[in-house]
Amino acid sequence: MIKFGVIGYGYWGPNIVRNLRALDTATVVTICDKSSAALRRAKQAHPDVQVTSDFTDVLSSPDIDAVAVITPVWTHFEFAKKALQNGKHVFVEKPFTTTSAQALELIELAERNNLQIMVDHTFLFTGAVKKIHQLIDDSTLGKLYYYDSTRVNLGLFQHDVNVLWDLAPHDLAIVDYLIDQQPEAIVATGQAHFNGLTDVAYLTVYYPDNVIAHINVNWLSPVKVRTTLIGGEKKMLVWDDLEADEKIKVYDRGVQMNSREGVYDLLVSYRSGDMWSPKIENVEALKAELSYFVGCITNSDRPFNDGMSGLRVVRMLEAAEESLKGKGAAVYA
Amino acid sequence: MIKFGVIGYGYWGPNIVRNLRALDTATVVTICDKSSAALRRAKQAHPDVQVTSDFTDVLSSPDIDAVAVITPVWTHFEFAKKALQNGKHVFVEKPFTTTSAQALELIELAERNNLQIMVDHTFLFTGAVKKIHQLIDDSTLGKLYYYDSTRVNLGLFQHDVNVLWDLAPHDLAIVDYLIDQQPEAIVATGQAHFNGLTDVAYLTVYYPDNVIAHINVNWLSPVKVRTTLIGGEKKMLVWDDLEADEKIKVYDRGVQMNSREGVYDLLVSYRSGDMWSPKIENVEALKAELSYFVGCITNSDRPFNDGMSGLRVVRMLEAAEESLKGKGAAVYA
Amino acid sequence: MIKFGVIGYGYWGPNIVRNLRALDTATVVTICDKSSAALRRAKQAHPDVQVTSDFTDVLSSPDIDAVAVITPVWTHFEFAKKALQNGKHVFVEKPFTTTSAQALELIELAERNNLQIMVDHTFLFTGAVKKIHQLIDDSTLGKLYYYDSTRVNLGLFQHDVNVLWDLAPHDLAIVDYLIDQQPEAIVATGQAHFNGLTDVAYLTVYYPDNVIAHINVNWLSPVKVRTTLIGGEKKMLVWDDLEADEKIKVYDRGVQMNSREGVYDLLVSYRSGDMWSPKIENVEALKAELSYFVGCITNSDRPFNDGMSGLRVVRMLEAAEESLKGKGAAVYA
Amino acid sequence: MIKFGVIGYGYWGPNIVRNLRALDTATVVTICDKSSAALRRAKQAHPDVQVTSDFTDVLSSPDIDAVAVITPVWTHFEFAKKALQNGKHVFVEKPFTTTSAQALELIELAERNNLQIMVDHTFLFTGAVKKIHQLIDDSTLGKLYYYDSTRVNLGLFQHDVNVLWDLAPHDLAIVDYLIDQQPEAIVATGQAHFNGLTDVAYLTVYYPDNVIAHINVNWLSPVKVRTTLIGGEKKMLVWDDLEADEKIKVYDRGVQMNSREGVYDLLVSYRSGDMWSPKIENVEALKAELSYFVGCITNSDRPFNDGMSGLRVVRMLEAAEESLKGKGAAVYA
Repeated sequence: MIKFGVIGYGYWGPNIVRNLRALDTATVVTICDKSSAALRRAKQAHPDVQVTSDFTDVLSSPDIDAVAVITPVWTHFEFAKKALQNGKHVFVEKPFTTTSAQALELIELAERNNLQIMVDHTFLFTGAVKKIHQLIDDSTLGKLYYYDSTRVNLGLFQHDVNVLWDLAPHDLAIVDYLIDQQPEAIVATGQAHFNGLTDVAYLTVYYPDNVIAHINVNWLSPVKVRTTLIGGEKKMLVWDDLEADEKIKVYDRGVQMNSREGVYDLLVSYRSGDMWSPKIENVEALKAELSYFVGCITNSDRPFNDGMSGLRVVRMLEAAEESLKGKGAAVYA
Repeated sequence: MIKFGVIGYGYWGPNIVRNLRALDTATVVTICDKSSAALRRAKQAHPDVQVTSDFTDVLSSPDIDAVAVITPVWTHFEFAKKALQNGKHVFVEKPFTTTSAQALELIELAERNNLQIMVDHTFLFTGAVKKIHQLIDDSTLGKLYYYDSTRVNLGLFQHDVNVLWDLAPHDLAIVDYLIDQQPEAIVATGQAHFNGLTDVAYLTVYYPDNVIAHINVNWLSPVKVRTTLIGGEKKMLVWDDLEADEKIKVYDRGVQMNSREGVYDLLVSYRSGDMWSPKIENVEALKAELSYFVGCITNSDRPFNDGMSGLRVVRMLEAAEESLKGKGAAVYA
Repeated sequence: MIKFGVIGYGYWGPNIVRNLRALDTATVVTICDKSSAALRRAKQAHPDVQVTSDFTDVLSSPDIDAVAVITPVWTHFEFAKKALQNGKHVFVEKPFTTTSAQALELIELAERNNLQIMVDHTFLFTGAVKKIHQLIDDSTLGKLYYYDSTRVNLGLFQHDVNVLWDLAPHDLAIVDYLIDQQPEAIVATGQAHFNGLTDVAYLTVYYPDNVIAHINVNWLSPVKVRTTLIGGEKKMLVWDDLEADEKIKVYDRGVQMNSREGVYDLLVSYRSGDMWSPKIENVEALKAELSYFVGCITNSDRPFNDGMSGLRVVRMLEAAEESLKGKGAAVYA
Repeated sequence: MIKFGVIGYGYWGPNIVRNLRALDTATVVTICDKSSAALRRAKQAHPDVQVTSDFTDVLSSPDIDAVAVITPVWTHFEFAKKALQNGKHVFVEKPFTTTSAQALELIELAERNNLQIMVDHTFLFTGAVKKIHQLIDDSTLGKLYYYDSTRVNLGLFQHDVNVLWDLAPHDLAIVDYLIDQQPEAIVATGQAHFNGLTDVAYLTVYYPDNVIAHINVNWLSPVKVRTTLIGGEKKMLVWDDLEADEKIKVYDRGVQMNSREGVYDLLVSYRSGDMWSPKIENVEALKAELSYFVGCITNSDRPFNDGMSGLRVVRMLEAAEESLKGKGAAVYA
């Protein structure tokens, strides 16, 4: 039974607590938030759990094995570092840290102390992403051509991060997982319309072998869109995460190169066959992720969404930020 | 009655001929194509029109007032130049030319000879774009924030132009028309997967006053998408050109800045009201465009989609091409 | 503070308890279910509420002002009757009773004892139905022509009621509310494919003034559909209850009669204008309904979804059932 | 080479002429219409075809092998009869005739004279209906449970037939083809709101073995819908004829009966698997149909959409009409 302290009971914290408590292998000992309103909500929902506004109660308590850091990103480093220094495993909200230097320091600290870090890239535990990963792994899609995601909606505006740091980590964690390669270059463009924080941004990630990823994030869209196109040599797919039942549609469509050439001849022809929408496993991703984390702690296994995974995403965000400032100048890995 | 010669009877040429013939104010005298199969099709559909494989029959015929050049882009300059030199008005398929130098030369030639050039930016004559133009003009949308278009499908691969030159001119002509400003910088990224021609590309156009346009073009998409989001201060809209009936949806949604600030307070709030889908005028855009061209010739008026409009689009394409080669390096106007 | 006992803690009961407890004006004293598993779930979610498997604890407790009967339909009459006999107001799940005779008996009993009955026609408290009611009331739609609802999905098969009694009460309550007239005749057709219970059914309700309602209910549909078309003289609307944001679309479309006649002339012409999707109030319908019930009890007001409303729905169901047995023979009111 | 005369050049006639002329095996000799405007349009589109306003020119011309009757339904019998009496094969627009007695007379006349009748049930030649037929034939769907079609839109109001005779023949021909059984009973309800002609109608067709078909036709719908649900024991499908690419979606969903029973136990459980959208053959149905008719004439084969097929549809329409007048009273075959 792994005993957790949870720091941060705002928007996402309650989901962490609820899912941890639903596990047979974990328990929540303390919930911490500096807002008294948050603590009242915590107490009402979980009368049997301790609440506190003092972070050190969690970070240094001998009763606690692992700390979940569900706070604004600029506080992740400080809390995670103290937790690791006090011998606690840490589960950190995405994005992992605000700089890659911080991420590296936490990774080294965890290694020295034989502790696990998990970064909350929840999407990697959804039925949809697991299915796409499988379709790539078993060569259903064939060699990848591109990943193109649109993740837009009205708000939420954040006071401390821009739309890149808010929405792009989802897709960056997914492409890191699916493509599993080091990016060659990153280009970002975008614009700020209100408080100086970029609210519309477009990211291109160049990968080896002509693989390209594009991510469109926007806080000013009148409609919510969560659509990703993925093109492969053998099949192509559309993942619409807002669909209740048919989130993934796999199309037997593609291009066939033509050997004969000529100025007036097309060089390629098209293949068009059936479409197929595989049944997606209906799991609560967060519960699966937390259960996996508890298993990793128990068995001293390194999770695949570990600090290194978090670091890779932070590095891409840093590069994107730098490119954005240079109006799209490519930043090389 | 303006007498036309039409050069090029491939995919788009038949539409030009059919629509010209439907006008009371124009007639088609000669159709020219170097393919005998094309000429047979022309003869079958229009038994009373002359057909020829010799371009000079059209370019130098004293019977012809205006020439429509509906051929591959790399031939536009040569045909248009000869037509203008022979005193004929020209209607040129988009994109206008392959270089801005060519475009400038044609514009000057036309001016010296008091002739009209129209570039076939057909979309500017659709009910949808006219309605969007009106919603911007009459301040319904308010100050513009962004234009974000996705124009993807499987094929058609071209043998001579890449996806940028094939699909982006539509959106570039539209943003040129709607935003009506000189771009500040252009950034393009993309990738080629087959014959060396870029088949996936992403364009960002920076405009003054924080207006940003983004154009996603892709020849490798399993599904056809023609969706544009436009954000303004007062309203936002979605234009889905594949919708039969409700192409444009205007959302009474937006952002309101909050005066009070604080690290934990949101700086903005959201407004969400009704959605409204205006009735779109049901016109055949090409017929309206050609009718307008005939009127311009008759009245010696300069069309708004003239050579300068064609030049502005070619300049953006050149800049995009250069940025693409530099992996997203911004190219300044 | 109205004190409730809740009988039945299966699928819907937990929602009743949760929403009653969220009111400042009501409290839940006792939860009753004959299933010990249900009572364990109740105790876990609401540790401070009494639970019991003995219905008489609820029906005769002097501590309880009102009883919510959230049990299978064939038990409604017995529980509601005892509650009324014990001086308690009753909130009864839909459909009210299994026969109109039972409904009448309960209505009379409530009247004699000055007690309120509310039948849980939750849909009448949704933002969508309230908006439609308003559009009819304020003459936006004009004279009604038809109401046509499709309410289909895979399951839930019930063991004791057929698809008519399961799904049609929603629409019957809605048409009773919107059309507010006595039906002239009811025709039902359908088929049973498994256990003898009709799983596919089609209902037509003839109203005065040529108003017609049609309800398509089906437990064997591969997809879930909740779409209603409503036609009026001035406007027509589509209500898609599965849409997250644009549940109601009002179309400025209609028919205009032509005075001139002739065998080869159309007698009518069509009008087609804008579409408009009004913002729907985002309320939890059940909470609004229960709050309204508590208000009715407190102020001795008769709710509009009272026993008579429940009776009218049961009468339509009885007529439909009879028509179904007679293969569509019209049953007159 | 089969020589055709075409009577009726209104809305549908031009399609018949165009498709006949596109066949290598047929030619159109004469087009006949009593409207001079129609004849002008015919002459313009087909300058080399004779036009006439005198029906007898077509019906008695020795040059003509077959007559296509594309006129209002109340004229079908007269024209088809004369054509058959003059030794010509006939292609008749749907619905075949206004009464089953007329249909029988034509069928007998054709048989006596060794002539072919084809009724224009075009939908039977679409890729979608052919695919559905195949999915039933090869037992993919398993035993049929129901066919449920919604075919609604705004107009066209007809001056001589109601919505039943206008829109329902499509579905009746399809169910006749797919289910291939004699109906047991027909129930129809509906309403007229304008000129006395029913503009909203609902049809139920009872087939043997608990198969049920339902057809919803409506001239007063604000939106166009062409959606059919088909339920089978093994799979279920949705056919949306307005979808460009994925017209048919086959769902691996169904019901499994449970052996154990009990008042509080569900008797059935559900199966939910992948969805699959087969590629639909992209044919112009009318061209395929006319080509097939020419082949039938040439080879003296009886088409499957012959007079008997037309008669079966007319019989269902007659029964529906009678039921409609009796407010849903079942009419037995």
